[in-house]
Amino acid sequence: MTTPYTYENSRRLFEKAAGVIPCGIYGHFSPAPLVPPENYPFFAQKASGARFTDIDGNEFIDYMCAYGPMVLGYNCEPVDRAALAQLEKGNCLSCPGPVMVELAEKLVNTVAQMDWAFFAKNGNDVTSYALMVARHATGRKKIVAIRGGYHGTAPWAQTFGHHGVTEEDAAHMVRIPWNDAAAFEAVLEQYPGQIAGFIATPYHHPVFADNEMPAQGYWQKIEALCRKHGVVLIVDDIRCGFRLDLRGSHVYFGFTPDLVCFCKAIGNGYPISALMGTDALKSAAAKVFYTGSYWFSAVPMAAAIATLDEMARINAAAAMLAYGEKLRDGLIETARRHGYDLKVSGHPAMPYLRITDDPSLMLHQRWCGECTRRGAFFTSHHNWFVSAAHTEEDLARTLEIADEAFAVIGDNPQKK
Amino acid sequence: MTTPYTYENSRRLFEKAAGVIPCGIYGHFSPAPLVPPENYPFFAQKASGARFTDIDGNEFIDYMCAYGPMVLGYNCEPVDRAALAQLEKGNCLSCPGPVMVELAEKLVNTVAQMDWAFFAKNGNDVTSYALMVARHATGRKKIVAIRGGYHGTAPWAQTFGHHGVTEEDAAHMVRIPWNDAAAFEAVLEQYPGQIAGFIATPYHHPVFADNEMPAQGYWQKIEALCRKHGVVLIVDDIRCGFRLDLRGSHVYFGFTPDLVCFCKAIGNGYPISALMGTDALKSAAAKVFYTGSYWFSAVPMAAAIATLDEMARINAAAAMLAYGEKLRDGLIETARRHGYDLKVSGHPAMPYLRITDDPSLMLHQRWCGECTRRGAFFTSHHNWFVSAAHTEEDLARTLEIADEAFAVIGDNPQKK
Repeated sequence: MTTPYTYENSRRLFEKAAGVIPCGIYGHFSPAPLVPPENYPFFAQKASGARFTDIDGNEFIDYMCAYGPMVLGYNCEPVDRAALAQLEKGNCLSCPGPVMVELAEKLVNTVAQMDWAFFAKNGNDVTSYALMVARHATGRKKIVAIRGGYHGTAPWAQTFGHHGVTEEDAAHMVRIPWNDAAAFEAVLEQYPGQIAGFIATPYHHPVFADNEMPAQGYWQKIEALCRKHGVVLIVDDIRCGFRLDLRGSHVYFGFTPDLVCFCKAIGNGYPISALMGTDALKSAAAKVFYTGSYWFSAVPMAAAIATLDEMARINAAAAMLAYGEKLRDGLIETARRHGYDLKVSGHPAMPYLRITDDPSLMLHQRWCGECTRRGAFFTSHHNWFVSAAHTEEDLARTLEIADEAFAVIGDNPQKK
Repeated sequence: MTTPYTYENSRRLFEKAAGVIPCGIYGHFSPAPLVPPENYPFFAQKASGARFTDIDGNEFIDYMCAYGPMVLGYNCEPVDRAALAQLEKGNCLSCPGPVMVELAEKLVNTVAQMDWAFFAKNGNDVTSYALMVARHATGRKKIVAIRGGYHGTAPWAQTFGHHGVTEEDAAHMVRIPWNDAAAFEAVLEQYPGQIAGFIATPYHHPVFADNEMPAQGYWQKIEALCRKHGVVLIVDDIRCGFRLDLRGSHVYFGFTPDLVCFCKAIGNGYPISALMGTDALKSAAAKVFYTGSYWFSAVPMAAAIATLDEMARINAAAAMLAYGEKLRDGLIETARRHGYDLKVSGHPAMPYLRITDDPSLMLHQRWCGECTRRGAFFTSHHNWFVSAAHTEEDLARTLEIADEAFAVIGDNPQKK
């Protein structure tokens, strides 16, 4: 049996953090949803491959992958080599580097049906830009999005009632349920000639709820409605991008968007995001003024080129699918041996897990926590991420840990 | 006489760029305001100290400093060393590094009167967050800002009528003239109990117009009005920050804000921004949900610590002031010798220049262009930036170039 980890240094540093940073650790890295927090590390000191080590010296097989950016493994040699070679020449200068054009060309040649690329830093930078482009291109204001869909934390992307968000911030957002093309049609009728864009992730991956793939024909219906009504079809591929298909998740699901937002996996952790689009929207995109202090920095662009090359070379999407399927099957079987039914939803490279017959999530939270303090970093509220760096050894150890954790929370008495 | 530079490679690559990127180069790096563009390089291949080299092999003494981020020189050894040491351990992981707490503590100990720090990527991330914090803290919606003041390119920060911006995006922005405390008082009367925050840069640095320092007592009046009416006083120190005073530009101008936004010079080009605030606003800040994929990355935080240390060690603000004053005096004298009156406004570390009696700016544009193609990178529409890496040799060569460029545009016939 594994000795459960303890986190004295993380606890102590978190108290210091709380003195000088609101929440101590904020946003999606906040320990708040890591329930119970005693089971989780709060600060990491180093990482390599699919593993990181916290500041108490505990090592974890990482199933959050920095919440998406890590796709080829931490400190991935070809990516870091490209980044360092660029850093020696220069990073954030008074003109962009030629690497910006090289990256745009590589993306245009990699991502299906997209003719241009625009670079920024945050995912939210490019979802916001996509809305502005759609509005300028159509002369309309309203944007249809999915209820519970996440596109960042800009006020428009949050819901009125969230702290600091005004009613007007989301005045033109119309939220409809996922997988409901009829609801989109109804909105188009309700606001004739007023819908500028439709934005959604390739499949629905909310927190605290099963993830949902598109129903058969869903995207094709949405695409047809967008074409019929002159609505700009925006895919937020920030979380799924390059994990499902290197050519874009729209290829995986068989449809053609007008704009695609990328971030996270595009640079294996180097900070860059991209909006890609079709020629029809290029002049509208050119007219929207949009910029940021570090958006022309060359190092993340060099890293992104190396990341795209490496993902293509090793067929990273196939590797993540294969690992994700083995992980899913292994965990379901492990749960079954202990009398539990583990529901795994979403794409295998980004699985969302839940022990069924546990509506309060407390049992699932306990199991995730017991896995984490044995070295498999599992959150209970958010989809996980696998990477192309996860190995057979990682898989075997993960299943061992999962088994131990089920033993700790106790076999299901109802199902025995 | 210097042989003027030519830019065949920049021109050729720009054409390729325009094929795959809207505008080719967009935002504040767009060549559009560089008039005539024939005088300017578009892509840089390397940089060191205060100089960069374009892709035609032309070297420039850089007076834009990446539009602000470069404050200690390109490829500054202590900053890059700290960044590389952190990169070896890890950058964008599933938990923040201890370096986040170290940086927050350093900032709290460096910047006067601020008790906490919050980190993001773009300047606009933290100006937007400041508005959300002010709104949540006060339960009010309206934000007073300066007409022509720049706080980023989020829709709220742009003006309605700009492409892609809706009327509602800036519904709660009230714009008043710079240096007009009476206008602020009038707005407070017009919207009693409705003003959440006042946001402005420490001094007014618009493009295409003389920069304006605060009038005597201006900030003290603004501060007093904010206190009287419970308005959150937000300083956007993104452009000025650490160039005027390491303790924050509010120290330079003698007042106490509630929130201060930093970016650019904070990490010498490594991508990071920060909002700092007082204890009174800490719990409001903690309640606003705000995050981004790369906001916890450790490398830019390590770079920021090294940048702050190095700026303190060499007294960078004093060095930039001294260089800026010599540059200003030297350029004014050079202009005078050719019969021109050069007006230099703003702080000497961030001068805005203009040849007087040239309302069309055409003469000034020609002179800036002729300087640029001789190796002093001058824009005509935007304030310049000096760095602590600019040397006496750079200064002497800059004045030589300025002299040659005046000779090329011809002595002023009126003033001879």
